[in-house]
Amino acid sequence: MLKLYTYFRSSAAYRVRIALNLKGLHYEAVPVHLLKEGGQQNQPAYRAKSPLGTVPTLEDGAGAHTQSLAIIEYLEELHPLPPLLPVSAEARARVRAIAQTIACDIHPVNNLRVLQYLGREFGATQAQKDAWYRHWVMAGLQAVEQMLADDPATGRYCHGERPGLADCSLVPQVFNARRFDCPLDDMPTIRRIVDACEALPAFANAAPAQQPDAE
Amino acid sequence: MLKLYTYFRSSAAYRVRIALNLKGLHYEAVPVHLLKEGGQQNQPAYRAKSPLGTVPTLEDGAGAHTQSLAIIEYLEELHPLPPLLPVSAEARARVRAIAQTIACDIHPVNNLRVLQYLGREFGATQAQKDAWYRHWVMAGLQAVEQMLADDPATGRYCHGERPGLADCSLVPQVFNARRFDCPLDDMPTIRRIVDACEALPAFANAAPAQQPDAE
Repeated sequence: MLKLYTYFRSSAAYRVRIALNLKGLHYEAVPVHLLKEGGQQNQPAYRAKSPLGTVPTLEDGAGAHTQSLAIIEYLEELHPLPPLLPVSAEARARVRAIAQTIACDIHPVNNLRVLQYLGREFGATQAQKDAWYRHWVMAGLQAVEQMLADDPATGRYCHGERPGLADCSLVPQVFNARRFDCPLDDMPTIRRIVDACEALPAFANAAPAQQPDAE
Repeated sequence: MLKLYTYFRSSAAYRVRIALNLKGLHYEAVPVHLLKEGGQQNQPAYRAKSPLGTVPTLEDGAGAHTQSLAIIEYLEELHPLPPLLPVSAEARARVRAIAQTIACDIHPVNNLRVLQYLGREFGATQAQKDAWYRHWVMAGLQAVEQMLADDPATGRYCHGERPGLADCSLVPQVFNARRFDCPLDDMPTIRRIVDACEALPAFANAAPAQQPDAE
């Protein structure tokens, strides 16, 4: 039985929940509350699984795997159907680049630990933290919009007619963008693709509000 | 002919330079100076290739590929020998998780554009920017040290006896750590592996000081 250490609002955990659902893989969700008890992710038992204290971690038998995109590639290799990556090297590079633009260049800069540092060390107000958050979301999603809108490989989903790795990254990031009131008016391709994804049970059931630890 | 848009000091470009060298692939280096002329990465001609304005971009015929780890996976798929990823899904997940801990959780938070924002919006001094930089490097590399030291799969290199994707990410990050005087005394496994890598021409020739645009 797969065991996913998750937090309902974690964007990275949300990506893996979508991938597990798309592949029809059952898993046990183990909540790790990032704000309670000084952060449950900082407790030694969890740090032994995830040295940096990030969620998600996927346990598969004896092995514990961290980093959401590495976990999704692992699932793809062990459970290839339905595929979350296309066939050609060029297309796979495109899908991974979209996913990594979100997972490397937007999300980590807006992570909880970074926002906490801004408050602690720079005395950032909530308004300044929100402005920071929106700045990186907008810069990153505008780039993603361009990668999608300018390329004929974009279909109903980020790549073609089947949801995949890029969609697993895009939907949680747009969820966060909306939570922080980022204006997505000039991102019609992103909005269209996210609407298509959210109509699918695999995405809808992975949403934060549907998780057992949702507040 | 492969064309790599690169900046000598870019950690992400350095990763791809190592991978190209390990695979023995010749490429033309096209320098993109991140500080000159308001940042050459912000010019429209470059933004057409890399919408977010990041380096590196790899051009292979008509295709332009961004995101360093996506580029290395692309090279791995088209030029499988020598391999930069191990064979089993479990081992591949481990190598990717080490690479992503660096490429997602350390590097983007310390990127030039983030440091510039700290100065512009929070009036951060150079000392405060340096403290920020060191904070994320130390937190991230301590996690990587644990991932390496606690696992019998670690060998002369991050995974076994052959340099691969994780080493391509680790060496540039340690180069940056040293540049910012981060103390690596309690990271003996990382220091040992980086020494082993730097003894190889593929790594030595990819170093910032060896690049045509080095200052």
